[in-house]
Amino acid sequence: MRPIQWENGVLKLIDQTRLPTEYIVNEYTDYKVVAQAIKDMIVRGAPAIGVTAAYGIVLGAKEFCTLSKEVFMEKMQKVCDVLRNTRPTAVNLFWAIDRMYTILAKENHNNIMETVTLLEQEANKIYDEDVDINRAIGCYGNGLIRENDTILTHCNAGALATADFGTALGVIRAAKEAGKHISVFADETRPFLQGARLTAFELHHEGIPVTLITDNMAGHFMKQGKINCVIVGADRIASNGDVANKIGTYSVAVLAKENNIPFYVAAPISTIDFTLDNGVQIPIEERNPKEVTHIAGQRIAPEGIAVANPAFDVTPHRYVTAIMTEKGIVYPPYKANIGKLK
Amino acid sequence: MRPIQWENGVLKLIDQTRLPTEYIVNEYTDYKVVAQAIKDMIVRGAPAIGVTAAYGIVLGAKEFCTLSKEVFMEKMQKVCDVLRNTRPTAVNLFWAIDRMYTILAKENHNNIMETVTLLEQEANKIYDEDVDINRAIGCYGNGLIRENDTILTHCNAGALATADFGTALGVIRAAKEAGKHISVFADETRPFLQGARLTAFELHHEGIPVTLITDNMAGHFMKQGKINCVIVGADRIASNGDVANKIGTYSVAVLAKENNIPFYVAAPISTIDFTLDNGVQIPIEERNPKEVTHIAGQRIAPEGIAVANPAFDVTPHRYVTAIMTEKGIVYPPYKANIGKLK
Repeated sequence: MRPIQWENGVLKLIDQTRLPTEYIVNEYTDYKVVAQAIKDMIVRGAPAIGVTAAYGIVLGAKEFCTLSKEVFMEKMQKVCDVLRNTRPTAVNLFWAIDRMYTILAKENHNNIMETVTLLEQEANKIYDEDVDINRAIGCYGNGLIRENDTILTHCNAGALATADFGTALGVIRAAKEAGKHISVFADETRPFLQGARLTAFELHHEGIPVTLITDNMAGHFMKQGKINCVIVGADRIASNGDVANKIGTYSVAVLAKENNIPFYVAAPISTIDFTLDNGVQIPIEERNPKEVTHIAGQRIAPEGIAVANPAFDVTPHRYVTAIMTEKGIVYPPYKANIGKLK
Repeated sequence: MRPIQWENGVLKLIDQTRLPTEYIVNEYTDYKVVAQAIKDMIVRGAPAIGVTAAYGIVLGAKEFCTLSKEVFMEKMQKVCDVLRNTRPTAVNLFWAIDRMYTILAKENHNNIMETVTLLEQEANKIYDEDVDINRAIGCYGNGLIRENDTILTHCNAGALATADFGTALGVIRAAKEAGKHISVFADETRPFLQGARLTAFELHHEGIPVTLITDNMAGHFMKQGKINCVIVGADRIASNGDVANKIGTYSVAVLAKENNIPFYVAAPISTIDFTLDNGVQIPIEERNPKEVTHIAGQRIAPEGIAVANPAFDVTPHRYVTAIMTEKGIVYPPYKANIGKLK
């Protein structure tokens, strides 16, 4: 299940706002429409929006490649800015754009067409690496999963949130591939319902036993001893181990701690923002109130009321048992151990 | 806003499944249809379903009052059983039915018509007392609310959950009536959305500032210092102070404790089940999975997946700062102090 495909200069995205009731693949050749798709969460998940932005830059480069070098670079600066201004929290977006910009800014290209080719190669590399990275995270993460574990996950850190395989769900897939009998509780993850719509869909599709619950049920099942560990993804990790992830992650982490359940974060190293001392500095996106007041186009709340809709929260590192990365499992003290990944 | 009205032998219920987009009042003269309305949550909230069941018994008595005493009593036994088997968790339902049955079982009535009259008087008394009790809970509870407090509430423990005024929202109303400037965060309360549909509606209607959030945002706002206290209702309180209430209450209580925020339960003494030593013994209703997989008639999750839908959870008494009752505020140690209310 690959949410992003690049074929003959066309970017194809599974429309994740329509899953699971409709499976529609949109095609993109205009970087501005790609930026809007990221904003609208047609594609979402920190690694996936990084990959998508990289291809957005390739589309921009193809659009402007007949211009003079100087004008091309001006236009490409704008392309990067437009893609950069789509969503503020997931650092993988900026990481991917920076990586593409490094190619753009190299002075030694013979001509713009060579630059475009190199950009396309770099985007493909980011894509391919993401699959390998997720496999590696899964491999290391699997070491912490026991036979017969029931795992709670929040939001969707699956194949649909990455190039393929997934981070948190990658660990679950790896455990299944290793022959372990595991089952999953999936929080529905209001307001955007990534758990109900995407995680339940991915796992059910692959025959991994999954039970859908509303977000407010997770604590109840932890208290009842029904959950052995929690695995979530991340949108940005500060250098002290504080984790920004989908709204509700903090609550799950507190409930896990209260019930003595390990709380794991599965994320590539590109999700770590080494420039931030702690999670307080992570910008939290506030999204459209309509995501809360309406579900599937239907109004569920009275008109005219105030609504808060932060898309992410920050889980302080003291709640995080370990971080599963492609270079291995990182344990506290995070400041020292995350520093070693740099 | 009175969700239950008794007029000339007809029971009228605001259809709470349709609020806030539609305001429809259903009329009932058949106790079996009343029982179905309780099951379907046309009327919900522990005190409200107690009052409704009392009127359901009156309707049954009116239906069977022309029969012989013996057959009447047999029929009434069935009426009580049907109403008793609607929902298992809220103890106020059984409390109200038992109170009505005490009238029924009295041997000294001259004839069945007198019994019917006495039953109607008793139902009206339960109704009127509930309003007075909620006023008293509000009066005591207000003493714990400070000027400028922002209060988090979960589900709907408002006028719509009672005969009038509400328990948790009754405390909020009392604080407003006392001139305090308070504001409220309302959890939407999946799956049935009582917070988004009912609490937001009640408070907005009365000009009490309310911000709607999804359930998984409550912890985030507590951590940010935006919430000063939590007030919720209850469906059943064991004699050790363990509290069964709408699913998600336990999570809110744990998050409140973690963030050093007082967690208050506002409930009439009829919600206390003195026969239970602790909350583990409280039966938890499991409801239709469709409440989770569908919202407003729209499917939001893939077909064929497993779903859990416990309607309530139990918050251990160690998370409860105080219980606000019509006889005053009850503090720990609950075993001793709840015992004094008997």
